Amino acid sequence: MTTARTSQPAARATAVIGLDLGGTKIAAALVGPDGAVLRHHHRPTPAREGAEAVLDALAAAAREVDDGAAAIGVAAAGVIDPRTGTVTSATDSLTGWAGTALAAGLSRRTGLPVACDNDVRATAATELPAPDDTQDSFVYAAIGTGIGGAVAVDGRMLHGSAGIAGHLGHLPSPEAAGLPCTCGGTGHLEVIASGPAMTALYERLSGRRADRLETVAAHASAGDTAAERALATGARATGRALGGLANVVGPHRVVVGGGVPRVGDRYWSALTDAFRAELMPPLRDLRPVRPRFGPDAAVLGAALLTRTVTLHHPGETR
Amino acid sequence: MTTARTSQPAARATAVIGLDLGGTKIAAALVGPDGAVLRHHHRPTPAREGAEAVLDALAAAAREVDDGAAAIGVAAAGVIDPRTGTVTSATDSLTGWAGTALAAGLSRRTGLPVACDNDVRATAATELPAPDDTQDSFVYAAIGTGIGGAVAVDGRMLHGSAGIAGHLGHLPSPEAAGLPCTCGGTGHLEVIASGPAMTALYERLSGRRADRLETVAAHASAGDTAAERALATGARATGRALGGLANVVGPHRVVVGGGVPRVGDRYWSALTDAFRAELMPPLRDLRPVRPRFGPDAAVLGAALLTRTVTLHHPGETR
Repeated sequence: MTTARTSQPAARATAVIGLDLGGTKIAAALVGPDGAVLRHHHRPTPAREGAEAVLDALAAAAREVDDGAAAIGVAAAGVIDPRTGTVTSATDSLTGWAGTALAAGLSRRTGLPVACDNDVRATAATELPAPDDTQDSFVYAAIGTGIGGAVAVDGRMLHGSAGIAGHLGHLPSPEAAGLPCTCGGTGHLEVIASGPAMTALYERLSGRRADRLETVAAHASAGDTAAERALATGARATGRALGGLANVVGPHRVVVGGGVPRVGDRYWSALTDAFRAELMPPLRDLRPVRPRFGPDAAVLGAALLTRTVTLHHPGETR
Repeated sequence: MTTARTSQPAARATAVIGLDLGGTKIAAALVGPDGAVLRHHHRPTPAREGAEAVLDALAAAAREVDDGAAAIGVAAAGVIDPRTGTVTSATDSLTGWAGTALAAGLSRRTGLPVACDNDVRATAATELPAPDDTQDSFVYAAIGTGIGGAVAVDGRMLHGSAGIAGHLGHLPSPEAAGLPCTCGGTGHLEVIASGPAMTALYERLSGRRADRLETVAAHASAGDTAAERALATGARATGRALGGLANVVGPHRVVVGGGVPRVGDRYWSALTDAFRAELMPPLRDLRPVRPRFGPDAAVLGAALLTRTVTLHHPGETR
């Protein structure tokens, strides 16, 4: 990545805005045609004030970075259908978010065409190969507060019915047997392998409180066997699920991002070992890899959406 | 499906040969351009005589049904890479089969262009929508002596790295925890939910012998609780794995074929219930469905391969 000056006219001419909508924060960036971030802004998400307030805040964030941008791409929490530009379903992290006409509402407010997708798939868009490589495929996992993912085949992101594709946090996991999941199901990967899930497992195993995963990791480094076991269980569950999924999809790459893998090498090694043990013989050389981009990946991926999914123009009826 | 007379010249002009290579039997059909089976033939597979003998038998089966066919499609056991026309890997059900240049060997013997794929993906090709429907996607599961599958997205079959895509028998299954798998892994779906796996589970639960799954099903119908439990466990494992996979792929349809689902409605109901319990809200209307075609599906799908995957012509070097 290179940096560019905001005064560079050629870059400004076809710059686009990338917005990353999370449960607590909205990040915005003006992204040049070469992928350089030209301007940055962030503000709190009015998560409890309803969908109209969230759309207003997205529009305000876009205005803060705008400098002749041609379009807006939004990486948003929830299940998003990029074809219709709407929020198919959502948890209660954003009040009244399910059913929101995201693209229509934002293009009306800004006068710019809007493309949108869920935040994980948008982030994973930064892993897509060059547009002329139609052979490449990958599975992308985001391990954080929750577990999300994305699947790309033949060089294109998979969206699936209702935009659901990539929800690998809701694969059955032997390690999660019997644990209730946020989706209403039972025994899913997310409830044993997300950051909060491993922290909760540590609390159950040790009988002690832990405020966050980094604390558990520190305990593990100090030889606390309950902490070691909690991390190893989550890492193993994730590695196994990704390995099994690799047998179904046959990806060229498996990328594991999100905040949890930064917790340490012990976690990464356990995940890698469990992953490899699942693979069928033709895939045995496959290893999980870390993402290409760091913290900017979400806004960069959001900006990429303006080129890869449906653009919804102001005034379109739906 | 209509039937057609072999003397119909227009049909003969663009007829193709479909071959289905299994561990015990080779089935051959001449298939007209309208999908009608014009001629049928089958012969034993020389499974213990090596790859050259198998290729000779395939060529002989093709000759038995040929009547001016334009090409041959082969649905074959093993992991097949249709792009190279080779057997990427195989179990020992066919001696020396791994590494065989299937397309090259058969086109050399017959003088016809040859397309090939694994038997499950070929069979699943009969579920592909009309060529102009590029939106449709499905997950296809074949539950029989083993568990195989296929995934189609955007109207096209997914092949994956080394042709591996669709191997959903090697997803982790909570019901299979600790059981060794044929692939070298542990706890995979296939070792709890295939026909032989459910029969073996019945034997473990009851302490009695059972020759095959139909016997277990008959015991279940007569109120044998071990038999009921064995069938319900396999059905639940399959339903859960397919439901979790649906959350990742977002298919429009989930098709469950193979011999096992014919064992009875009790099995099908348990599978459907477990499947539905896994689904995220946007997919809640999805139900598993049975395949469109019966016993002819494999040779019909093999014939379709001549239109959907790489044709390898006689004399091509590789």
